[in-house]
Amino acid sequence: MDFSSKLLEKAVEEIALLPGIGKRTALRLALHLLKQPEEQTVHLSKALLDLKTRIVFCENCHMVSDTKICSICANVKRDKSTVCVVEDVRDVMAIENTSQYQGVYHVLGGKINPIEGIGPGQLNISSLVQKVKNGTVEEVIFALSSTMEGDTTNFYIYKQLENESVKTSTIARGIGVGDELEYADEITLGRSILHRIPFENSLKN
Amino acid sequence: MDFSSKLLEKAVEEIALLPGIGKRTALRLALHLLKQPEEQTVHLSKALLDLKTRIVFCENCHMVSDTKICSICANVKRDKSTVCVVEDVRDVMAIENTSQYQGVYHVLGGKINPIEGIGPGQLNISSLVQKVKNGTVEEVIFALSSTMEGDTTNFYIYKQLENESVKTSTIARGIGVGDELEYADEITLGRSILHRIPFENSLKN
Ligand SMILES: [Zn+2]
Ligand SMILES: [Zn+2]
Repeated sequence: MDFSSKLLEKAVEEIALLPGIGKRTALRLALHLLKQPEEQTVHLSKALLDLKTRIVFCENCHMVSDTKICSICANVKRDKSTVCVVEDVRDVMAIENTSQYQGVYHVLGGKINPIEGIGPGQLNISSLVQKVKNGTVEEVIFALSSTMEGDTTNFYIYKQLENESVKTSTIARGIGVGDELEYADEITLGRSILHRIPFENSLKN
Repeated sequence: MDFSSKLLEKAVEEIALLPGIGKRTALRLALHLLKQPEEQTVHLSKALLDLKTRIVFCENCHMVSDTKICSICANVKRDKSTVCVVEDVRDVMAIENTSQYQGVYHVLGGKINPIEGIGPGQLNISSLVQKVKNGTVEEVIFALSSTMEGDTTNFYIYKQLENESVKTSTIARGIGVGDELEYADEITLGRSILHRIPFENSLKN
């Protein structure tokens, strides 16, 4: 396609690198920005750069954060002995949104997926195991989506913790099997946290 | 929603200002950038800023351009006596893509739309009329989409040019009535340029 402007072409190329955004949509977005006041593009551009260069991941739970220890881990009212294991940042947001959970989190950063070449070593699993070995954790709640990869990951971690004196549970499957956690409604998701069951029980189904 | 990071929240807010992108999609895009190498965000951010601050609009035809006069207007091989009137930048790209047209363009920047408060004064119409009055234009081709607003705009310009010695034509309606030009396939659009008809004839249908 002839963009008649290298600047426009470059912007469209960069926007189209984003997932789910084709060249046509990218062009529409670029031309939209051209019609808006300059501040909008300046703010967008700065926000993206700040996000990438200034954000950190919590040293304790791997959640996105503006500080070394995230606001959840730093909150003295949160119960540090209960750790909810989730796949990614959006799952923490989804659970926080229910206001049903008073423990802390552990963000794995993905699920074990041999087909995509993601093994336990690429996920934040060892730091979770170490946290449990340190002896301050009383319960680990598995809150991964119940896909094959989620189940594999749960089971892998469960085996790692088998000899530790820690309770393991999974969130109640009020939410549909195979559904992504972040798309569940707040009430269902909140209940599935409250009605969590011992992990062993979930293996019997 | 609790983003646990002001940086993330700000980025999501700014991305969600883009048309057709909701908060959930914005969050997905922001988290995607977080997982990519820093260069990707730096390049995207810079490309957007460069686009907005460095791009210019051709002094002659109002096309997006990196120079005062666009590459089409500056091309000595293009026939300056034939001017194709289009709504926006994407229409120029779509017609250029057909490789069927050797004339130049005039980008109006929109269509007359009383409901949205867009009158002739907000469009690049007077510069088109002036161009014709200067006497170098032999033919004006209307290539707006055939919506009510497109027809109104065509007719408004047609009336302005009525007393000038210039031929007016519209592109052949091989493309569906009410369809947007940019979504037409190249062959149909190319033919509709080649088989353009005198504007007066289009009024008879
Ligand atoms: Zn934390
Ligand atoms: Zn030009």
